[in-house]
Amino acid sequence: MVQFSDIASDLTRQAIELPSWAFGNSGTRFKVFGTPGTPRTPEEKIADAAQVNRYTGLAPTVALHIPWDKVDDYAALRRFAEDLGVTFGTVNSNTFQDDAYKFGSLTSTDASVRQKAIDHHLECIEIMHQTGSRDLKIWLADGTNYPGQGDIRTRQDLLAESLQTIYAALGEEQRLVLEYKFFEPAFYHTDVPDWGTSYAQVAALGDRALVCLDTGHHAPGTNIEFIVAQLLRLGKLGSFDFNSRFYADDDLIVGAADPFQLFRILFEVVRGGGYDEGSPVAFMLDQCHNIEDKITGQMRSVLNVQEMTARALLVDRPALLEAQNANDVLAANGILMDAFYTDVRPALAEWRESRGLPADPIAAYKASGYQETIVAERAGGVQAGWGA
Amino acid sequence: MVQFSDIASDLTRQAIELPSWAFGNSGTRFKVFGTPGTPRTPEEKIADAAQVNRYTGLAPTVALHIPWDKVDDYAALRRFAEDLGVTFGTVNSNTFQDDAYKFGSLTSTDASVRQKAIDHHLECIEIMHQTGSRDLKIWLADGTNYPGQGDIRTRQDLLAESLQTIYAALGEEQRLVLEYKFFEPAFYHTDVPDWGTSYAQVAALGDRALVCLDTGHHAPGTNIEFIVAQLLRLGKLGSFDFNSRFYADDDLIVGAADPFQLFRILFEVVRGGGYDEGSPVAFMLDQCHNIEDKITGQMRSVLNVQEMTARALLVDRPALLEAQNANDVLAANGILMDAFYTDVRPALAEWRESRGLPADPIAAYKASGYQETIVAERAGGVQAGWGA
Amino acid sequence: MVQFSDIASDLTRQAIELPSWAFGNSGTRFKVFGTPGTPRTPEEKIADAAQVNRYTGLAPTVALHIPWDKVDDYAALRRFAEDLGVTFGTVNSNTFQDDAYKFGSLTSTDASVRQKAIDHHLECIEIMHQTGSRDLKIWLADGTNYPGQGDIRTRQDLLAESLQTIYAALGEEQRLVLEYKFFEPAFYHTDVPDWGTSYAQVAALGDRALVCLDTGHHAPGTNIEFIVAQLLRLGKLGSFDFNSRFYADDDLIVGAADPFQLFRILFEVVRGGGYDEGSPVAFMLDQCHNIEDKITGQMRSVLNVQEMTARALLVDRPALLEAQNANDVLAANGILMDAFYTDVRPALAEWRESRGLPADPIAAYKASGYQETIVAERAGGVQAGWGA
Amino acid sequence: MVQFSDIASDLTRQAIELPSWAFGNSGTRFKVFGTPGTPRTPEEKIADAAQVNRYTGLAPTVALHIPWDKVDDYAALRRFAEDLGVTFGTVNSNTFQDDAYKFGSLTSTDASVRQKAIDHHLECIEIMHQTGSRDLKIWLADGTNYPGQGDIRTRQDLLAESLQTIYAALGEEQRLVLEYKFFEPAFYHTDVPDWGTSYAQVAALGDRALVCLDTGHHAPGTNIEFIVAQLLRLGKLGSFDFNSRFYADDDLIVGAADPFQLFRILFEVVRGGGYDEGSPVAFMLDQCHNIEDKITGQMRSVLNVQEMTARALLVDRPALLEAQNANDVLAANGILMDAFYTDVRPALAEWRESRGLPADPIAAYKASGYQETIVAERAGGVQAGWGA
Repeated sequence: MVQFSDIASDLTRQAIELPSWAFGNSGTRFKVFGTPGTPRTPEEKIADAAQVNRYTGLAPTVALHIPWDKVDDYAALRRFAEDLGVTFGTVNSNTFQDDAYKFGSLTSTDASVRQKAIDHHLECIEIMHQTGSRDLKIWLADGTNYPGQGDIRTRQDLLAESLQTIYAALGEEQRLVLEYKFFEPAFYHTDVPDWGTSYAQVAALGDRALVCLDTGHHAPGTNIEFIVAQLLRLGKLGSFDFNSRFYADDDLIVGAADPFQLFRILFEVVRGGGYDEGSPVAFMLDQCHNIEDKITGQMRSVLNVQEMTARALLVDRPALLEAQNANDVLAANGILMDAFYTDVRPALAEWRESRGLPADPIAAYKASGYQETIVAERAGGVQAGWGA
Repeated sequence: MVQFSDIASDLTRQAIELPSWAFGNSGTRFKVFGTPGTPRTPEEKIADAAQVNRYTGLAPTVALHIPWDKVDDYAALRRFAEDLGVTFGTVNSNTFQDDAYKFGSLTSTDASVRQKAIDHHLECIEIMHQTGSRDLKIWLADGTNYPGQGDIRTRQDLLAESLQTIYAALGEEQRLVLEYKFFEPAFYHTDVPDWGTSYAQVAALGDRALVCLDTGHHAPGTNIEFIVAQLLRLGKLGSFDFNSRFYADDDLIVGAADPFQLFRILFEVVRGGGYDEGSPVAFMLDQCHNIEDKITGQMRSVLNVQEMTARALLVDRPALLEAQNANDVLAANGILMDAFYTDVRPALAEWRESRGLPADPIAAYKASGYQETIVAERAGGVQAGWGA
Repeated sequence: MVQFSDIASDLTRQAIELPSWAFGNSGTRFKVFGTPGTPRTPEEKIADAAQVNRYTGLAPTVALHIPWDKVDDYAALRRFAEDLGVTFGTVNSNTFQDDAYKFGSLTSTDASVRQKAIDHHLECIEIMHQTGSRDLKIWLADGTNYPGQGDIRTRQDLLAESLQTIYAALGEEQRLVLEYKFFEPAFYHTDVPDWGTSYAQVAALGDRALVCLDTGHHAPGTNIEFIVAQLLRLGKLGSFDFNSRFYADDDLIVGAADPFQLFRILFEVVRGGGYDEGSPVAFMLDQCHNIEDKITGQMRSVLNVQEMTARALLVDRPALLEAQNANDVLAANGILMDAFYTDVRPALAEWRESRGLPADPIAAYKASGYQETIVAERAGGVQAGWGA
Repeated sequence: MVQFSDIASDLTRQAIELPSWAFGNSGTRFKVFGTPGTPRTPEEKIADAAQVNRYTGLAPTVALHIPWDKVDDYAALRRFAEDLGVTFGTVNSNTFQDDAYKFGSLTSTDASVRQKAIDHHLECIEIMHQTGSRDLKIWLADGTNYPGQGDIRTRQDLLAESLQTIYAALGEEQRLVLEYKFFEPAFYHTDVPDWGTSYAQVAALGDRALVCLDTGHHAPGTNIEFIVAQLLRLGKLGSFDFNSRFYADDDLIVGAADPFQLFRILFEVVRGGGYDEGSPVAFMLDQCHNIEDKITGQMRSVLNVQEMTARALLVDRPALLEAQNANDVLAANGILMDAFYTDVRPALAEWRESRGLPADPIAAYKASGYQETIVAERAGGVQAGWGA
């Protein structure tokens, strides 16, 4: 039986990257609701992200999205962040909001559109050098809405070509992670719809090209932990975009829709070495707080990941292996469930306190008055969202 | 064997209502692309809708959406439409874009929010009197994103109460149609998620409350034609919102994603009397032409419905019944497929010409120069979309 | 904050019915694996079921399946069961294994087949009188595999007619529960595919006709707890068939695939009065232990239901309501999650001991030697399965 | 515009392999219905398969399933088949029906079970030499039903190892095709659940290891034609198992559930060179005629493939490319749909007659009296099914 004390030191290396855009407004095609206190600038987003880290100790890096987080002086932005105790992680490109990309970006049959999209990534790489980011994340909205609209095969070849150019421009220490998504915004075919496609594409590029797994980007019923195990086995799991979903790409708080799934995913991460010291796997959130508070929403999210990681670490793996090898189905399942049903929250609260963090980070944040301050101070201006 | 000549007269009574908003811009949460020539006013939308009817003879009515189509003088708008050969059909309410509805409208636990939503419907009913509309269509975005966020049961009771008030305000000749939707924009629970809920709610209201079936609003794999048959049997099928989907509520052109499904749906409509003279079932489109041309997109849609209706009418029902009663599975299926695989397009082209319509409506429209004119004339202003 | 002591007395009224067939072999179309010790007779199934009750105190009744559990003398079978501390619950009919039902049973267009199926149900009612069963459960495999094979509408009318005859034959204290299922064994249309259909059919019958909700019989993504809330609201939730699934009708151990879903379902049961003293809702398992041990599989199942019921009862409903009414999304969700994440197992172990039950029922059963005995004694004969 | 005469010669090279087991009985876990005339021996299955080829000219090869089609003398079986005008194609292994495989076969943690499964494949290879078969098809039922039951990662490694041994035993002209399947009979994880896994596994083996795509083995909503295009691009599409489905692995007649999907699949096959002279792609059926006639069911199936191939060949690809490059969404889609809606049946009937085949193969078969003969002659004995 694994005890919390056995895993306490493993928890210290947990770091979950926050997406800057999670602090801006988001919504559906039907409506984007605003919220008092929403940031209006990259700096304000970073300030909010730093709050999450301050109270949880779990979120030392922030992911940027270009052009939403474009600034004139990235060095200054970096200092601003560092002063607040956070640094920059992944840079996310955007090839879905320029009118030029209506029918595709890196897969466009129009060479000038492809070049524009490639150039955007080269700009992102340049920004990465300035922000000290390791990962260039490409989520590609490219696809078609109607059968016949595009040539699926040609687009795949064009994608390979475009990615090659981008990959070649990466610095030695930089990586490219290619995200896949089942559907949306394209409704017939998506150019990178599944892990197999992402894997085939990055395998053709080289060692520093890896797959990004967004937990909300699969067909109904997909066994995501299997993909985790497989990509770790193939040495190609680069990063996670955590969130949860009941239906499609709902982008809810990670662990909210199916906590047991999150547990199984994290167990395979641990099992496959993805949580080991020095693991190449980056952990990140990618969520939309459409109606709930954003800062506490992000706190809830990193705490959910932490709690589930603790449970995954608590699995008695030697006993599990024994039951598995004995084909004792119920015993093996029971060992897993035992860890899942363990209430790690009290032990984590203590552990946090022992490290100078509040036992209840959300309560501490609420008591701090920060929320009231930003609601008061951030009057006027344009609240940040996906468009800006 | 049924011949086209046997069904030609049945085709004359086909009428498919167009949604005014299909002529405005639409998109996803990631981007709404604009298109040259997009209408900026209700009048321009109606003018475009009238073009669809002019060349196809299939779309004599236009559905309005309040507040998107609010005008000062509905009588004038009605004359404007009638001068262009179309009249007004359904009035669609909107309880998802006001900030007040962030956590619900007709189901809100806040009585003042419910009243606001009820008042909006009373205003719609008043507009219906002015526009000569029969149907008030309620699609409710209400729902929650997280388990526990709302009390599912209480909300259902509040919905019943709100609907009762609205229903009571209907004129003698007016109807209420309640649409259901599997999910989106709510991602955990939706207050009217399935036909059963819509049916239970409208059955409690009275004879003039009916179900609206949107073909894109079901769980994956749902047999929609079964629901059609069931609702017709229960006397509660009020109207259709036609569109098609590969994944979720994609809102693609009707028949584009699964033509055979459209055929099966229309066959059950015919079988169940929903296409009979005097049938209470209203046929309407509800689609989003995110990337394709809107006017020709609507033309393609009504033609798809017409072509499939023709195929559904061509089914040799006496032979089918005989094969069914003999449990000859392949023969019965073959009789259905025979109609589906019949290429009705040449006969329909001839039939159109015999009625003074162009054989190829889309080509005729394209040759008319209308598109070039609106692209040129509709410079400036704000293109209509879901927000306005 | 609700304490375990507050809910302890509520737990005493929990009773979960066991299906006799869960103790026989089951499998997929690919293979049914046998297991040493599998019962060969209804008596042996009942003896195994009694073991589950003996160690958990949760399963005082057993459901029978006719003809699988046909015996010459039901009074003797009843005494046999009572001697082992259990009584009989639901009687399940079977209209899917006789060659006559290849193309339908209660919906067959052949009047003699319908009569045969009706007569089978009349026989079941007769058996119910002898076994003291209250509920006649009808799960109908009827449906078609190919479009056109059957007339969906006519079949629905025939179903209504057949059910009426059966309903009329019920005793005053007997009930009819109609189960729905999304698909399988029919692969195109199923005659009772969703709760709406089951509801419409039983509503037409009368007060003693109710819906049976099998948790594995829904389309992917369906919000089952919503259906629970709705059926309770409509007064038509008759019974549950508990199991769990990752994909289709997998019939796994309840709570195994998505424990949080089970929690949400049970919370709505509690919320809607379905767990109240005297509630008409019957709780039953319907699972297939294809590869795991059957007796301990059933134990695991009833314990899962008990643990989740405890968590559902622990929800601080006044606090929840307050957060809901304040539209505090994260707080409301947090209150629900707090109960879900509470580890009720130690308190339940104590509670069991306080009632003379073993703290760990599965360990106690394993230590009892029963399994070894039946493996040794049940050599020879034909192991019970779905066919016998 | 492509004319039928332009594609007529392309149609002559179409060959669709029939699975011997399609002529035996099949069903669901609920019931396998027998049918008069069902074969009792491999010879009788082959005789029935030969009928399909005789009347359609489309099915010159038969796939065998070991052990279901085990005989003492394969040379004799081969002569028997050749006398009837057919030869042997793929040999399908079976690692799901032996009690030893309850918890896995090629992935079992028990080395002796793995060896047994490997030996079975070596035996299949030996049979292939005798039957003149090129392809060894491996569909692996391996997987688990409960989280924790097995170690996903280890099983994947064991699979790679087992496959390597089998691959090494292949003759120079032989190939291994690895089929993937979303789920069933395993209900939690499947060891080869998706094309990515099959691709990663066969890529590690060598050039003569390829992916087998069964059209019914995907998650809901999966864009199958995309996978076709991708695998052709990667040079790894080995074969098809054709069938259709509304829900899961329904194994209905190919084209029956979604004819447009079959069209899109075949269009990508043509587009990607999979139908070219000398293409390595093998086309095969894998279906279950649970309730419909088997011989005419197979006829209907190969005719469906032929009709859809004709439509796919009719697509005006130069015009399509032009519309695609112009981003004319509706025009491009329209060109595809134009081919789909073309009724190729009359031209195919003529074409068949011109080649000495009956215009209506099914009618010709029915008129032949073969069915009546086998019904009369095949009295007694045990009808073939999946178990024998």
